[in-house]
Amino acid sequence: MSNPPPPVAATAAAAPSSHSCKVILANTIAKVLVSEIQAGLTALNHQRQSQHQHEHVPQPPHLLGILANADPAAQTYARWTEKTCHDLGFAYTLLQVEKDSVEETILAANANPLYDGIIVYYPIYGGRQDQYLQNVVSVDKDVEGLSHLYIFNMYQNVRFLENAENPSAAPARKSILPCTPLAVIKILEYLHIYNPILPYGNRLFGRTVCVVNRSEVVGRPLAALLANDGACVYSVDVSGVQQFTRGEGIRKRKHEVVDKEGWTIEHCAPLCDVVITGVPGEAYKFPCHLLKEGAVCINFSSEKNFPPEVKERASIYVPAIGKVTIVVLLRNLLRVVQNRQAQLQLEQEQRSEGRDASHGVSSPLSNTKTQAQPELVPAPTDMSATTMNGVAS
Amino acid sequence: MSNPPPPVAATAAAAPSSHSCKVILANTIAKVLVSEIQAGLTALNHQRQSQHQHEHVPQPPHLLGILANADPAAQTYARWTEKTCHDLGFAYTLLQVEKDSVEETILAANANPLYDGIIVYYPIYGGRQDQYLQNVVSVDKDVEGLSHLYIFNMYQNVRFLENAENPSAAPARKSILPCTPLAVIKILEYLHIYNPILPYGNRLFGRTVCVVNRSEVVGRPLAALLANDGACVYSVDVSGVQQFTRGEGIRKRKHEVVDKEGWTIEHCAPLCDVVITGVPGEAYKFPCHLLKEGAVCINFSSEKNFPPEVKERASIYVPAIGKVTIVVLLRNLLRVVQNRQAQLQLEQEQRSEGRDASHGVSSPLSNTKTQAQPELVPAPTDMSATTMNGVAS
Repeated sequence: MSNPPPPVAATAAAAPSSHSCKVILANTIAKVLVSEIQAGLTALNHQRQSQHQHEHVPQPPHLLGILANADPAAQTYARWTEKTCHDLGFAYTLLQVEKDSVEETILAANANPLYDGIIVYYPIYGGRQDQYLQNVVSVDKDVEGLSHLYIFNMYQNVRFLENAENPSAAPARKSILPCTPLAVIKILEYLHIYNPILPYGNRLFGRTVCVVNRSEVVGRPLAALLANDGACVYSVDVSGVQQFTRGEGIRKRKHEVVDKEGWTIEHCAPLCDVVITGVPGEAYKFPCHLLKEGAVCINFSSEKNFPPEVKERASIYVPAIGKVTIVVLLRNLLRVVQNRQAQLQLEQEQRSEGRDASHGVSSPLSNTKTQAQPELVPAPTDMSATTMNGVAS
Repeated sequence: MSNPPPPVAATAAAAPSSHSCKVILANTIAKVLVSEIQAGLTALNHQRQSQHQHEHVPQPPHLLGILANADPAAQTYARWTEKTCHDLGFAYTLLQVEKDSVEETILAANANPLYDGIIVYYPIYGGRQDQYLQNVVSVDKDVEGLSHLYIFNMYQNVRFLENAENPSAAPARKSILPCTPLAVIKILEYLHIYNPILPYGNRLFGRTVCVVNRSEVVGRPLAALLANDGACVYSVDVSGVQQFTRGEGIRKRKHEVVDKEGWTIEHCAPLCDVVITGVPGEAYKFPCHLLKEGAVCINFSSEKNFPPEVKERASIYVPAIGKVTIVVLLRNLLRVVQNRQAQLQLEQEQRSEGRDASHGVSSPLSNTKTQAQPELVPAPTDMSATTMNGVAS
């Protein structure tokens, strides 16, 4: 006994390998979201059946696509939308129209109860004129989350369309987030970058993220969303580096932006746990020698922004996200239908209480009486209850 | 429609608060482990009943405590062991003996089939003489994971007592890890610092951890375990800073250690996602201004190594770990009993195959014929299968 035995035959824990990077395809992540959406759709159908006993088989949510260009990417997106709708049990109609008919087509669809959601395949004119069209779509049918109300809420870190503490039994309607940034967030949740031990709304606290792209459509909203969830975000584009954070100890209610004078990707990339790229064009390749050991790398560009060497340093690599984005679009469609259900429930409650329905919360398009600026809403005391939201739930 | 509606009343996502740190008590984490242990105990009892039909109520695993000092900390530990054993359905016996009877008491307990596990409450002599006693305890009953075999396996990143790919139906016996380091690992798992998306054995890849304490009992083994699981670990004590890693791209099979000449806590703490302290004495307080925003802070010292300001910067703070450690001790007791069951199953298989049992894998104490140095074991090709282990499972 005084002579301890020599070590016993054993199995090594981790074999030497060319790299330790786990490549995760968008399809794998999309499948998880598909199950969630299907469960949500089933619940919605049950709810609708119990509300309207005469309708035994409720119509599935119906998405209208409006295509007014010959852009092959837009056409592919339209085809994929149709396929995914059918796979998941949603209805889909595509209208192909001339550019100068888009506005009236949207207005007609806004008013047509057949359609629950509307997606317009951009670019049509590009720039400000497309932004104008995005605001023509009714917020009640905006599944892309591109109307001003939703964009404003997103930047302001406002997650509900009414005060979640209202006394109604109807669930508070959730603000809609733009599809591609939300797809990235859903990917980060799947990858356990969001820490579920932390309270909703703070689950990226301690994470440092680099977003290479600061477009108004994806890069800037994404940086804002991640910072609103507690991350320290470096937003990088040709004009330089900006830092998005909720300040020291994430004490602020929403993110703030600081220009990092003189900084380049060389300064911020090595600090980052997560690097997200979305640079158009084949020419751009992320300089992988700047990656922190074990960084998580996600590319949302249709081009491969990361060269193969990414696997030498990254712990996780997601080479493309398109399949998640399209599923998130349908998640948003389900969300606008759920919001409408909540709205109906609220109106029913108000009628049954004998109150004049016109004083209650109504459609944001038809009634602004109950609206308040976010700063007028009292700060909630129980964060974990009030931060349940479309982002991290 | 051309004039989008103003923003609607809404709920802010995160209220301003004095800090955003989540304090998590050891008790909360211990409860999760208790459920796992109780499930394991139930499964073990079923297995024993089916193997020995005549014994209808198998005896619960029995832990022997040997106390040979008047150290109040050791006495408290002994009392807590007894209470926790009884709460969880294990049997416990405490023997209080004189220092010079400890060795013969251990030898008698090694040979006594009544006892499944043995814990000796150190210090007895301190230093090398205590280390000698740790090796007197039979490895088959060593619930503290302090015998040389287990310590050697731990540093070598060897997680099983035999090749996990052996053709037997009996599960491969797992090496036992020392309680306090394992408790810290279980806490890091609970806190989602281990990323379950990554393969077993690599789940800390991308994490940077600081361990302030490099004792042979906790600090050094802990740094080694974390580095073996893929982390970059800075081990800090009065003599300086060492870095433990599995090298670039965690390509190495086990950790290696590099002296960081001239480094102090000032250099490494700001790089760390996780800071773990275990400094004895009231005087030591971790310099919280060095913490990275949103760091995770865990203290395993019986003194409060973090001052209250830790909450100003940390995302998660675990002020003490004792209750987890004691539950991990019983997890180890269950593990040695499970290992013995696996051993019995293997021996039965070999007998039923008509082979001479003496050629099979036997107790590490009684038979060394099948033992091989770890480097002789072929590297497994499927990492996710072969790295299931006591650490990250």
